[in-house]
Amino acid sequence: MEDNKKISSAVIRRLPRYYRYLGELIESGVQRISSKELSAKMKVTASQIRQDLNNFGGFGQQGYGYNVKYLYDEIGKILGIDTSHNMVIVGAGNLGRAICNYQDFEKRGFIIKGVFDNNDTLAGENIRGIQIHMMSELADFIKKENVEIVALTIPKQAAKEIGKVVADAGVKAIWNFAHTDLNLPDDVIVENVHLSESLMRLSYAIANRES
Amino acid sequence: MEDNKKISSAVIRRLPRYYRYLGELIESGVQRISSKELSAKMKVTASQIRQDLNNFGGFGQQGYGYNVKYLYDEIGKILGIDTSHNMVIVGAGNLGRAICNYQDFEKRGFIIKGVFDNNDTLAGENIRGIQIHMMSELADFIKKENVEIVALTIPKQAAKEIGKVVADAGVKAIWNFAHTDLNLPDDVIVENVHLSESLMRLSYAIANRES
Repeated sequence: MEDNKKISSAVIRRLPRYYRYLGELIESGVQRISSKELSAKMKVTASQIRQDLNNFGGFGQQGYGYNVKYLYDEIGKILGIDTSHNMVIVGAGNLGRAICNYQDFEKRGFIIKGVFDNNDTLAGENIRGIQIHMMSELADFIKKENVEIVALTIPKQAAKEIGKVVADAGVKAIWNFAHTDLNLPDDVIVENVHLSESLMRLSYAIANRES
Repeated sequence: MEDNKKISSAVIRRLPRYYRYLGELIESGVQRISSKELSAKMKVTASQIRQDLNNFGGFGQQGYGYNVKYLYDEIGKILGIDTSHNMVIVGAGNLGRAICNYQDFEKRGFIIKGVFDNNDTLAGENIRGIQIHMMSELADFIKKENVEIVALTIPKQAAKEIGKVVADAGVKAIWNFAHTDLNLPDDVIVENVHLSESLMRLSYAIANRES
């Protein structure tokens, strides 16, 4: 991991998928696997798999294949999910609740410390034990609770404003579900989930399948 | 558009973002824009913009720039959102409801015809007027209502099963939110939204910012 910075973004985009497959193998009790078998499961060429994993020094041994648990743990370290991250969700609507209810995130070290909304009637309520706070408390809460990640599940205009607030409060990263770019300083990481763009790519694929 | 098939997937990934920006420009009353101005707004180089749009024959005129509305409409046609698509949502949980409540999808021609769940207590209920049906009715509904797209917002094991059911019923595309690959015949388009993978990329970015 001395040299992570040179790994291409295409490889990094694929790592979570390796991680998911290896996790499923562990659940099924598989202890080791060849690049060929992994290739058949993942529908990626075996040489692609070897190349990708070689970026990290490779974990395979000739004639043995990969030790599934070891590889899973190493990729976990590379992805930074061997440490925990405090997170809050801004927006207690359906999308915010869906994220809050998805308990796999916690298993991977993303600890949801609170949910924030500006709807007074929700004050003091909780979602599976995680309290809903008012937006006015957000900046203080981030500092006090060492929050690193903010998930924004609010409309775009509000997201632009709150993005600035949480960047100023010192968060490291924003998981942005609003349909807009946030235009924040470069030291704040932004990972966008733009659902309408995903749906347009799907629509493009339909249009071009038919032609 | 005679030659869409040769357009690189990288360009296609960027088109929805152009579409979004152009939509915002229209809302702000902007009628024309140079690649340089668009570049400053989108934080993409002007030459990248010219190259991308040249894939479609280019819509700009020297010394005038792009006609915003014209370019918006043309990209809309390329993305296939000038025609409407019937869609259903499988899973009436928070994520399914979030998608159902997002009315911008309908403005872009994605018409939600129904929501499906296997929870009896929801039968006959509706989400902003869109009826919740039981899963047993799904295959017939798809055929009767000419459903082209199914959004799957259910756990992974169920998603694999229902994926096969809706593929057999003749849908063109699946918008898959389950944390698994569906392994369907090649003629069914699958657009994945894997939130946990997105969160891992964010975690990777944090880990490598700090190192």
